[in-house]
Amino acid sequence: MTLPRTATTFPPPVMEARRWLEGVNFTTERPLINVSQAAPVEAPHPDMRKAMADAVIQDDAMHLYGPVLGMPELRSELAARTSRIYSGTVAASQVAITSGCNQAFAAAIATLCAEGDEVIIPVPWYFNHKMWLDMAGAKAVPLKCEGDMMPDPWDAAKLITPRTRAIVLVTPNNPTGAEYPDDLITAFYDIAKSRGIALIVDETYRDFHSSTDIPHSLFQRPDWDDTLIHLYSFSKAYRLTGHRVGAVAASEARLAEVEKFLDTVAICPNQIGQYAALWGMQNLDQWLAGERDEILTRRAAITENLSVLEAKGWTLLGLGGYFAYLRHPFALSSADLAPALVRDAGVLTLPGTMFYPKDAPEGANELRIAFANLDAAGIATLFARLEAVDLPLR
Amino acid sequence: MTLPRTATTFPPPVMEARRWLEGVNFTTERPLINVSQAAPVEAPHPDMRKAMADAVIQDDAMHLYGPVLGMPELRSELAARTSRIYSGTVAASQVAITSGCNQAFAAAIATLCAEGDEVIIPVPWYFNHKMWLDMAGAKAVPLKCEGDMMPDPWDAAKLITPRTRAIVLVTPNNPTGAEYPDDLITAFYDIAKSRGIALIVDETYRDFHSSTDIPHSLFQRPDWDDTLIHLYSFSKAYRLTGHRVGAVAASEARLAEVEKFLDTVAICPNQIGQYAALWGMQNLDQWLAGERDEILTRRAAITENLSVLEAKGWTLLGLGGYFAYLRHPFALSSADLAPALVRDAGVLTLPGTMFYPKDAPEGANELRIAFANLDAAGIATLFARLEAVDLPLR
Repeated sequence: MTLPRTATTFPPPVMEARRWLEGVNFTTERPLINVSQAAPVEAPHPDMRKAMADAVIQDDAMHLYGPVLGMPELRSELAARTSRIYSGTVAASQVAITSGCNQAFAAAIATLCAEGDEVIIPVPWYFNHKMWLDMAGAKAVPLKCEGDMMPDPWDAAKLITPRTRAIVLVTPNNPTGAEYPDDLITAFYDIAKSRGIALIVDETYRDFHSSTDIPHSLFQRPDWDDTLIHLYSFSKAYRLTGHRVGAVAASEARLAEVEKFLDTVAICPNQIGQYAALWGMQNLDQWLAGERDEILTRRAAITENLSVLEAKGWTLLGLGGYFAYLRHPFALSSADLAPALVRDAGVLTLPGTMFYPKDAPEGANELRIAFANLDAAGIATLFARLEAVDLPLR
Repeated sequence: MTLPRTATTFPPPVMEARRWLEGVNFTTERPLINVSQAAPVEAPHPDMRKAMADAVIQDDAMHLYGPVLGMPELRSELAARTSRIYSGTVAASQVAITSGCNQAFAAAIATLCAEGDEVIIPVPWYFNHKMWLDMAGAKAVPLKCEGDMMPDPWDAAKLITPRTRAIVLVTPNNPTGAEYPDDLITAFYDIAKSRGIALIVDETYRDFHSSTDIPHSLFQRPDWDDTLIHLYSFSKAYRLTGHRVGAVAASEARLAEVEKFLDTVAICPNQIGQYAALWGMQNLDQWLAGERDEILTRRAAITENLSVLEAKGWTLLGLGGYFAYLRHPFALSSADLAPALVRDAGVLTLPGTMFYPKDAPEGANELRIAFANLDAAGIATLFARLEAVDLPLR
């Protein structure tokens, strides 16, 4: 008997990490520093909350089914915004709204893969991508990143087989924070296009990119939708994680396929979340710019405080978006180190092992720190706690 | 090359039906009667809207990620309510919240089926179940219902093979409205249990059951969760279709598997919808009883007006929940009749062909009418319009 789909994959890492907190006492003098979660921990802008509350009271449509592919006004607004940000051409009919960006990924894969097909993903990878591919019966083919956490397009090309359906890029990357430059993304695009496979680009953390340049030039290609499937999330930019709103940009023909998947797994995205995303794009540009500045200030604090950790044998492997990705100096595997850090240092991180194929050795020496919820002082405190960790070194 | 998952199934029927409205003009004297949609078309109770709006403003948790399997208070409340309604025993740990009941079905199948496994479903079936099974690589095995639209457990037993993983019952049924009696449901349960497969019981329309008896006794079995997977929706009872809140009851072990699926496809149900569902269960029992009375009044109006249609050769095949399921007298297939009824009668129904396997002949003579949004006068008008339809008879 073949295993049912869910038995082919592992439990959600974020839920596992939450369980490490059970039975551990934290004090007000030494509270938990939770850098496990790639999500804002504060609520949205008060004006947005007010607008949402008004819509709940006044607009009946907030409570009723909407179109499977999302609210037309939201699709239009996002298409116009995407066109503007990338100096490209994206029509409303090339954009669909999903119940979060994970769902956008799952839908994209459903339009691409049959049982046994293959998808190439740089490692360390985002564990939910690996989990979904497992459950979809597709093989996640790991593409190793070297020291700078940049995947090599020519290495990817060598991994392409007749079963390969897509390459997935996450930029800024989860978990490494690496921001892929345009020429790197373009090289992947050209390979995907020439080989007749899709390039999925997940830009969940785009709004916190350290550069204000165009993130990439793919949307400027007139035929971008032959190759590119673009994923986006409203959760991080507008603090809407509890509302589940993401998006996918692709060809109209592919979105007709996406519609089948979304109809059966969600029917439609919830309306209030969509309303909030629309309102955010229409009203919060200046606020979002301030949010970005703050994240970049925090990112700078990582660099400024780094010498403290480097002196103890730590190495920064990647930095960007919400994440710092580090190599730790200890003899034990990150899978054991991360729960130990909860008990000994009051710090919750995710171990590198969560971001690699099972039994891959690389993750054992690595840790992901989602720093975005710590201000500069908090980052100094975090690093002081990590510096004080007294465990056998490699 | 094998087809990608979405290419193995058909487009969403509800979206197809919406397209029949394009280019058709309706007048205020003769507006569209839309009985295609199995959903309330009015907004929730004003007090619920107020409570939701207050939560949006006051409760930060409404805007943040929650647990994958849902809000603990909601799981507890639903478990207690389910225990009460069925005089059974359901723990909070045996209940999970999903982003709508379709997602609960998809998650259940993911815990049961590998590529090529089989699931038995009475026909006519709910098309989204068929679509999901297609995309999951599972085979939907149709179980024919005879004249009374009741599936036969012994017929089902004959369809069980080594690849069968579950039998699915929807009661009150979509599309037929048939309310399966306890002894029928129990017979299915006993067969499923003895053959070591699951019984999925989808009770999306339970709150509008014509009987106030216990809908079935399965939850009274101490080991119900070895066999039963129970699906429920808050959308119909509390008019929350736009908020996407459903539920699944199963064993803790199965919910740990469900958690993997939900984590990757949704991360968590949206918080406001969950809050509304909780508030509804805590505050709207009396209102919901009134809603049920009103639906039953409308159901009675179907019966009372039926002779008008019977005189023209129509037959009522099933009635319950939101639905009347009818055999029409016309020579053309329901697939052509339904769009013709939009143009000629200003009535939008769904054709029986949408509820059967492709190329099955049965659906051609049948139509689903989701009557719940029509009051008694509206039902009389609907029937008058259908009575006046002048098309060649069989």
